[in-house]
Amino acid sequence: METDILQKNNLLAQRNRGWFEAKGILALNLVSSPGSGKTSLLERTIRELGGRLPVAVIEGDQQTMNDANRIQQAGAPVVQVNTGNGCHLDADMVHRAFRELNPAEDSVLMIENVGNLVCPSLFDLGEAKRVVIMSVTEGEDKPLKYPNMFRSADICVINKIDLLPYLDFDLPKAKEYALQVNHHLTFIDLSVKSGEGFENWINWLMEQAGK
Amino acid sequence: METDILQKNNLLAQRNRGWFEAKGILALNLVSSPGSGKTSLLERTIRELGGRLPVAVIEGDQQTMNDANRIQQAGAPVVQVNTGNGCHLDADMVHRAFRELNPAEDSVLMIENVGNLVCPSLFDLGEAKRVVIMSVTEGEDKPLKYPNMFRSADICVINKIDLLPYLDFDLPKAKEYALQVNHHLTFIDLSVKSGEGFENWINWLMEQAGK
Repeated sequence: METDILQKNNLLAQRNRGWFEAKGILALNLVSSPGSGKTSLLERTIRELGGRLPVAVIEGDQQTMNDANRIQQAGAPVVQVNTGNGCHLDADMVHRAFRELNPAEDSVLMIENVGNLVCPSLFDLGEAKRVVIMSVTEGEDKPLKYPNMFRSADICVINKIDLLPYLDFDLPKAKEYALQVNHHLTFIDLSVKSGEGFENWINWLMEQAGK
Repeated sequence: METDILQKNNLLAQRNRGWFEAKGILALNLVSSPGSGKTSLLERTIRELGGRLPVAVIEGDQQTMNDANRIQQAGAPVVQVNTGNGCHLDADMVHRAFRELNPAEDSVLMIENVGNLVCPSLFDLGEAKRVVIMSVTEGEDKPLKYPNMFRSADICVINKIDLLPYLDFDLPKAKEYALQVNHHLTFIDLSVKSGEGFENWINWLMEQAGK
């Protein structure tokens, strides 16, 4: 039965992918543990991209409209999807959300998944790139302990580097572990709070969007 | 089908509960986001409880024996359960693990669940108490965004308070949110790293074990 669900999801995800391609929309699937700073990353991204690149957001959470309210205040159109007991977004939820959101052509669509390093790894949403965010307050061995997620990601954003002086976190070791499960993975180290390294993220986005 | 799985799990969990009661074993189910410090909490607990209270551990992870190795070095018997694609421990996995571990009578059995704030909330393991661990590096609104987990927990350990000076985390607000979803919840604030507040956790354990 699990295979059936995944197969059905894969078909719908390809349909989403075709829709995004037709409109020139760069769709990103943002996955992480709860509390790694996905929403803060989006808030700052929306503010820094300013008029350069329009951003729309789909927010996934079990409950609350909190993140959608934060994104709206940052100035981007947003649709919140509450999954209830569900532990991940799927391609159908995303399909219904972006049809409601109707993002502009040649824009970026940020899909913030439910905070969970396990289940979302199995569900393609039709994204162009999957972005896994980890924070330096988590252990270095997270990529080894949650290998499916790091294996399925295209890029790894390592957030909260402003806290490095107060932690025992070994940044090179974390990357070494991540590369063990996915040797194609690339990394951007940054702090959403201090802004350090944030330009690398913005540059990566502009490049992905072909700007 | 989901209901069937949960119903079957509930039956097995009650059988586990009976086994623990018969042996006077205090079984705790430790749940959290990845990286909140569950394993470090256990390491320090094993060292601080010393000979006062025997501790055995069941370690749940998607992959790796890392945590089991750490627990063994801290001096406690341990069985590692790798869930593969699975996102939580269930009562059957725990049953097989504790039969292999065969914990001593009148001991504490720590069950470290897979790091995930969603799926483990639905699966009773037969524990006496469910302990949710959150870290001050996560957002205050986690209890609202993952309400099932906080609603099903008996006690909330708030870890990494040594980092509070470097964060914008509002501790009273986090507790207020947690109490909104579960007004029975009690809290222990501590830092596994600095040891601040740790005696409250040890005292709580001794009290639960009837010592």
